[in-house]
Amino acid sequence: MGFRLGLVNPNTTQADTAAMAALARAALPGDAEVLEFTAAAGHASIEGEVEHVDGAVRVLELIASAPGLDGYLVACFDDPGLHAARELATAPVVGIGEAAYRSATLLGRRFAVVTTLPRGVAALEDAVRDHGLAHRCVGVLPLGTEVADQRGSDAAAPIAATARRAVQELGADVVVLACGAMAASAEEVAAQIGAPACDGVAFGALSLFALWRCGLRTSKLNAYAPPHGAAA
Amino acid sequence: MGFRLGLVNPNTTQADTAAMAALARAALPGDAEVLEFTAAAGHASIEGEVEHVDGAVRVLELIASAPGLDGYLVACFDDPGLHAARELATAPVVGIGEAAYRSATLLGRRFAVVTTLPRGVAALEDAVRDHGLAHRCVGVLPLGTEVADQRGSDAAAPIAATARRAVQELGADVVVLACGAMAASAEEVAAQIGAPACDGVAFGALSLFALWRCGLRTSKLNAYAPPHGAAA
Amino acid sequence: MGFRLGLVNPNTTQADTAAMAALARAALPGDAEVLEFTAAAGHASIEGEVEHVDGAVRVLELIASAPGLDGYLVACFDDPGLHAARELATAPVVGIGEAAYRSATLLGRRFAVVTTLPRGVAALEDAVRDHGLAHRCVGVLPLGTEVADQRGSDAAAPIAATARRAVQELGADVVVLACGAMAASAEEVAAQIGAPACDGVAFGALSLFALWRCGLRTSKLNAYAPPHGAAA
Amino acid sequence: MGFRLGLVNPNTTQADTAAMAALARAALPGDAEVLEFTAAAGHASIEGEVEHVDGAVRVLELIASAPGLDGYLVACFDDPGLHAARELATAPVVGIGEAAYRSATLLGRRFAVVTTLPRGVAALEDAVRDHGLAHRCVGVLPLGTEVADQRGSDAAAPIAATARRAVQELGADVVVLACGAMAASAEEVAAQIGAPACDGVAFGALSLFALWRCGLRTSKLNAYAPPHGAAA
Amino acid sequence: MGFRLGLVNPNTTQADTAAMAALARAALPGDAEVLEFTAAAGHASIEGEVEHVDGAVRVLELIASAPGLDGYLVACFDDPGLHAARELATAPVVGIGEAAYRSATLLGRRFAVVTTLPRGVAALEDAVRDHGLAHRCVGVLPLGTEVADQRGSDAAAPIAATARRAVQELGADVVVLACGAMAASAEEVAAQIGAPACDGVAFGALSLFALWRCGLRTSKLNAYAPPHGAAA
Amino acid sequence: MGFRLGLVNPNTTQADTAAMAALARAALPGDAEVLEFTAAAGHASIEGEVEHVDGAVRVLELIASAPGLDGYLVACFDDPGLHAARELATAPVVGIGEAAYRSATLLGRRFAVVTTLPRGVAALEDAVRDHGLAHRCVGVLPLGTEVADQRGSDAAAPIAATARRAVQELGADVVVLACGAMAASAEEVAAQIGAPACDGVAFGALSLFALWRCGLRTSKLNAYAPPHGAAA
Repeated sequence: MGFRLGLVNPNTTQADTAAMAALARAALPGDAEVLEFTAAAGHASIEGEVEHVDGAVRVLELIASAPGLDGYLVACFDDPGLHAARELATAPVVGIGEAAYRSATLLGRRFAVVTTLPRGVAALEDAVRDHGLAHRCVGVLPLGTEVADQRGSDAAAPIAATARRAVQELGADVVVLACGAMAASAEEVAAQIGAPACDGVAFGALSLFALWRCGLRTSKLNAYAPPHGAAA
Repeated sequence: MGFRLGLVNPNTTQADTAAMAALARAALPGDAEVLEFTAAAGHASIEGEVEHVDGAVRVLELIASAPGLDGYLVACFDDPGLHAARELATAPVVGIGEAAYRSATLLGRRFAVVTTLPRGVAALEDAVRDHGLAHRCVGVLPLGTEVADQRGSDAAAPIAATARRAVQELGADVVVLACGAMAASAEEVAAQIGAPACDGVAFGALSLFALWRCGLRTSKLNAYAPPHGAAA
Repeated sequence: MGFRLGLVNPNTTQADTAAMAALARAALPGDAEVLEFTAAAGHASIEGEVEHVDGAVRVLELIASAPGLDGYLVACFDDPGLHAARELATAPVVGIGEAAYRSATLLGRRFAVVTTLPRGVAALEDAVRDHGLAHRCVGVLPLGTEVADQRGSDAAAPIAATARRAVQELGADVVVLACGAMAASAEEVAAQIGAPACDGVAFGALSLFALWRCGLRTSKLNAYAPPHGAAA
Repeated sequence: MGFRLGLVNPNTTQADTAAMAALARAALPGDAEVLEFTAAAGHASIEGEVEHVDGAVRVLELIASAPGLDGYLVACFDDPGLHAARELATAPVVGIGEAAYRSATLLGRRFAVVTTLPRGVAALEDAVRDHGLAHRCVGVLPLGTEVADQRGSDAAAPIAATARRAVQELGADVVVLACGAMAASAEEVAAQIGAPACDGVAFGALSLFALWRCGLRTSKLNAYAPPHGAAA
Repeated sequence: MGFRLGLVNPNTTQADTAAMAALARAALPGDAEVLEFTAAAGHASIEGEVEHVDGAVRVLELIASAPGLDGYLVACFDDPGLHAARELATAPVVGIGEAAYRSATLLGRRFAVVTTLPRGVAALEDAVRDHGLAHRCVGVLPLGTEVADQRGSDAAAPIAATARRAVQELGADVVVLACGAMAASAEEVAAQIGAPACDGVAFGALSLFALWRCGLRTSKLNAYAPPHGAAA
Repeated sequence: MGFRLGLVNPNTTQADTAAMAALARAALPGDAEVLEFTAAAGHASIEGEVEHVDGAVRVLELIASAPGLDGYLVACFDDPGLHAARELATAPVVGIGEAAYRSATLLGRRFAVVTTLPRGVAALEDAVRDHGLAHRCVGVLPLGTEVADQRGSDAAAPIAATARRAVQELGADVVVLACGAMAASAEEVAAQIGAPACDGVAFGALSLFALWRCGLRTSKLNAYAPPHGAAA
C-alpha cells in the first residue's frame, strides 16, 4: 500500500488546501495518497500571533481527527503547533516552513525570505534563528500586501520583483516564499529570477515520504513523549 | 525515466559503497537507479583532516566523471568537498552528514552524535555549529574505535551502548551515527535503544529524490556559480 | 485609583491561581488590586507542548474577558501565548517565566533552572536561548516529579536539594523555579540554599506595576499591531 | 519605612543627577526616598572608554559612601562598574542601560538604540550582545551630537527624528535612548513617534523597588561574593 | 640559527609568492629565512570552492616537501587546508586569512572585509563566523573584480575607495584585504584611508616567529594528532 | 633602534612584574627593551570585579606615565582597561589574556582555561564569549586556590594536574593559564602534560613586536578615537 499523507491546513480557506494538495500530489510518487484537512472554523488566513495560536489548535484537532496516516504536513508557513503535533502524533510531522528552509539550504549558501506584511518580519526572523539559520539568511523582505493578495494568477509578479532584489542586491542564492498561498506562484517566480523559489509544500510532502521510506518515526522517548492520554 | 542517483564514496573501500548503495536502493522507489562510485585511490577510510582533504578531491573527481545524473550523494559522513561539489555539479548534491542531521531534527528536539575516535570530536562539533544546530545537540560521543571496527556484524552492540547512554543520561531524542560504515548498523541500534538512529544514507538519497521530484536544482547565481570552465 | 492587575492562570487549578495571587498581593503596594482569572476548562497543569497550545488559547480568552486592566500577568512558567497576548491587549503583558529570568539576571551572573520532568528540559533550554540568556544559564535540572508534586508543604525540600547542587557544583548564583506551583516554595528554598530563588510571580506583577508607573505600554506599531478587529 | 534608593551618577553634572532623580521620584510610590549622588570629580559626561573606566571608579566610591540603602541605580547608560558594584554592595544594583533594554523587550519584539556619537556605536552593540539581545536589536543609530547637546528643551526633536526612522524604516517597535541626559526627552520622543521610548531611569528605579518588595537581594555565593574586606 | 619560514602559496603564480615573501622578509628580523613554495600545478588564483579544494591539496604537498622548517605560512587568504596542515606538520602553521583577522581585532573594535568577486562573499562571512568574529565584522564588501585585477600598481585605488566607504559609512576601524594579491597594496590603502589595512602576510609570518620564540608548537594530543604515517 | 615595550602590571606585586618581564625579554629579539611598570597603589593581586576596576585605572595611569613606547602589554590576565588603553595610547596595546587565547587557538582546535578561584569562572567564560571563542573552549577549570598560591616553585604541580584532566577528559588540545602569576609555571606545566600551556606573556609581547615590525598601529578613526585631550 502506498504512502498516505495528511495535509493539514489550519486556515479555513479550502482553496488554499486544494492548491497545496495539488502541488504535493504532483510531486509525490503516483501511488501516494494526499488527504486534505481544512480548519472547520477559525481564520481565512493566519497573519499574526493571535491567529497563530488559533492555527496551532486547528492543527492538533485535525491531526487527532485522522489518526493512522503515514505523515502529517502542517500546511501553514509559520508551522503552528509543530512541537505539539510531534508530541501528539506517532507518525512524523513536518511543517512547510521548516521544509522550505531545508530545501533552500540544500540549494544555496544564502537565502532570503519573502513575506507579506511588515508586521510579520520579526516573527519570521525569530523562526529562522530558532532553526539555527540566521547566518544563512540575508534578510526577510515584506511585500506590503496581505495573504489574500497572494492568491491570484497575478500574484507572482510582485513576489518575483522582491525576490529579484534579494538575489541581485543582497546576494541570496535562493528565495523562500513565506506563505502557503505563495506556493502556487513558486514555479513562475523561480523562472523569472533564474534561481530556486522554495515554498516547502511539495518538498515537505516528500520529506515525509522520505522518512516513511526510511522507516523513521518521531522519537517518543524524551521531548515528544505522548501527552497524558493521547495518540494519533 | 526514473531517478538516477550517483552515490559517491570518497574512500577506496568498495564494500562501504556497496553497503550504502544497498540502503539507498532499498529506500528509493523501485524505478530509481543508484550508480556506485568509489575512489580509485586514496584512503580506505577517512578519519582526519588530511584524509578529509583527499576525500574532497575524490568527490570532485568522481562527480566530474559522471555528469548528467539527477543527484549526487556524498557518502562520507564529514561531507568532504560539499560546497565545491555544488559549485561543480548542476544537479543537486547532498552529503550524508547533513542528511543525518536533518532527519534527526525532524524526529526529535535534541540529538547526540556517536562517532569513532576522540580525535574527530572537535571537527564534528564544528560541523554541527556550521549547520546552526549546536543548540540541538547534547554531545558528540566517541566510541574509541576506528572506522574499520564499524564494519562487522558485531559493530552494532557498542554503538547501541553509547547511544543508549545519550538517550538516557543526556536527554537525546535521537542519535546520529557519524560514520558511513555505521549505517549498516542503524536499524539494529534503533531497535535496541527504542529511538531513531540516523545515518543519512537512505534519507540523503531520498532528499535528492525529493529535490528532483520538486524540480529544484542548485542555484547557480551567486555562491555556487560554476568554476572557470566546468560543469557536471 | 490604584494599579489593577489581571493574573491569568491558564490551567484549571484555582488553588494555583490563589496561591500566586497571594504572592502578587503581598508584594504589590497596598492599593493595588489583583484580579484572579483561572481557565474554565483545559488542564489541571501544563506539562507538555499539547497542553502549552491549550494554555495559549486560555490566556487569550481570559485576557479578552477582562479588558481595561493596567497589566496582565501570564501565570504559567512557559509563558503560553505571550506574543499573541501582547498583540491582543493594549495594556502590557508579562509572563512569569520571563520575569523569573529577568530577576535572576539582576541578582547573579549565572543561574540554573529547576524544573519538574525531564521531558520539559529541551523546551526550557529553547526558551532560555530565545531570551538570549543561554550564556547565563548553567543548566536546566529536572526533579523527576510532576507539577502536582510541587503543590504541598513538603514540596520545598526536594527543590532545595536540587537547587543546592546547582549552586555548589555548577556555579549558579541564583536558581529559577520553572513552575508556577513552585512559587509557594521559593522563600523556603532560598532560605535553605542561601541564594535567591526566582519564581517570577511577584517580580512579574511588580514589573507590570513598574511599566504602569512609568506610563509605558506595549508598542502597537509593528510586531504587536492589533489583530483584525480585537483589543483588550 | 519606605524604599530608599541611591541614584548614583558617575559624571559631575549635578543637573543630570537632579533630572534623573526627578524622573525616579515621579514614578516611585509616594513614600519612596531617592538620594542623589554625583561624582565629586571626573568628567562632565561619559563618552568613551577612558571616561567609562573613571565612571566605574566613581560608581564604586559613591556606593561605598552610602551603605545601607535598599537599592542602587547606576545612572549612566553604559552601566560603568555594574559587576563590581554588585560585588561591593549587599543591596541590589541596577543600571539604567540594562533597565532600558529590559523595558524595551517587554514592550516590543524589536528595538533600536539611539545614541550620541558614532564612536560609541560599537560599545553599545557589544553591550547589547552581552545582554544576549543582539537578535532583538535592529540597529544602533548615532545622532552625531554629544551628550551635552541632549540637555536642553530642544533636544527631543532630533532624537525623535532618528527614532522615527528606526520605527518606520527598520521595523523597531520601541526605541532605547542610550544616554542618561536623553531621559528628560523620553516622554516627548514617545509622543512624537507613537511608540515607547525607553531611557531606563524610572523603570530601573522601579525594578529596584520590585526586588525590594520581593525580598530579593544580590546573590553572594559565587560570582558576586564580597571582595576582600568590603561591603555597602 | 635564525627562524626558517616556509611561505606556501597554493596557486601557481610565482609573482604572488615572491611579492608575499618580500613582505614577510621585510617584516621579519634580519636573520630570518623565508623559503618560497609555489604550487607546481593547479590554478593561477583561487577564487571558488573547487579551486579551494585544489589549494588545500597543494598546501599539503608543499609542506610535506619541506619538512623541518620552523613554521609554515599558508599564503592564500581563504586558508585552504589549514586544519589538515596542522595535523600534518609538527611545526606551527598559520594562514594569512586568520592572521589578518587577528591583527585587525588587535587594532580596532570593528573591521570590514574587502574582497574580489561577489560570489566569494558568503564563504568569507562563513570564515569570519567560524573564527567567532561575526560580531566584530561590519560587512564583506566585494570590489567586483577578479584576483588578477589586484596585481598591478594601479590596484590600490579601487581597494581604497571601497575601504574608505567601510570606514566612513559602516563604522569600520580597520579593513581586512581578503586576497593575497592585495597585500602589495596594503600600505598604500592604509595611507589613503588613514586606518590600518590588514593583509595577514607579514603579520602571519611574525605570528609564526612569535610562536617559535615562545617555544610553542601545535598540540599533537587530540584534534591535530598525526595522520596515519605522516609528519613534516 | 630596537623595539621598546611597556609591560604594565596593574597589581602592586613587583615580583610579578619582574617575572613576566623576564619571560618577555627571553622571547623578544635581543635588541628589544622591556620597561617594567607596576601599580604604585592598589591590590597585590586582582581577583574580582572591584579589583578589576581598580586595575583598569592603574593600567591607564601607567600607560599615560610612559608615552612614546612602541607597544604596551597589559600584564594581568583579565585585561583590565584594554578598550580604554587603546583609546588612550597611540601605540598598540595587547592584553595577556587575549594573547593567551590567540596563541592557544593557533596551536589547537579546543582549549581549556585553568584559573584560580571558582568565583572567577563566570567572568572568564564571559571574556571567552566576548572574544568569540566559546565554541573553542571546553571549560574553565578553577584550582580552588588564590593568585598568591600560584607564585612559588611548587605552583606548577596542581596546575598540571588540572590541565591534564582538561586534556585527557575534556578533549582540550591546549590549556590556557588564566593568571599572570601562573606564567612562570607554563613551561613546566606544558612539559608535564605534553601539550602547550599558554600564558600570553611572551606571546603578547611578541604580538606587539609583530605589529611594530608590520607598521600597524591602533586605528584612531572610530571606536578608539582619542578621548577629550589625551594621548600616550
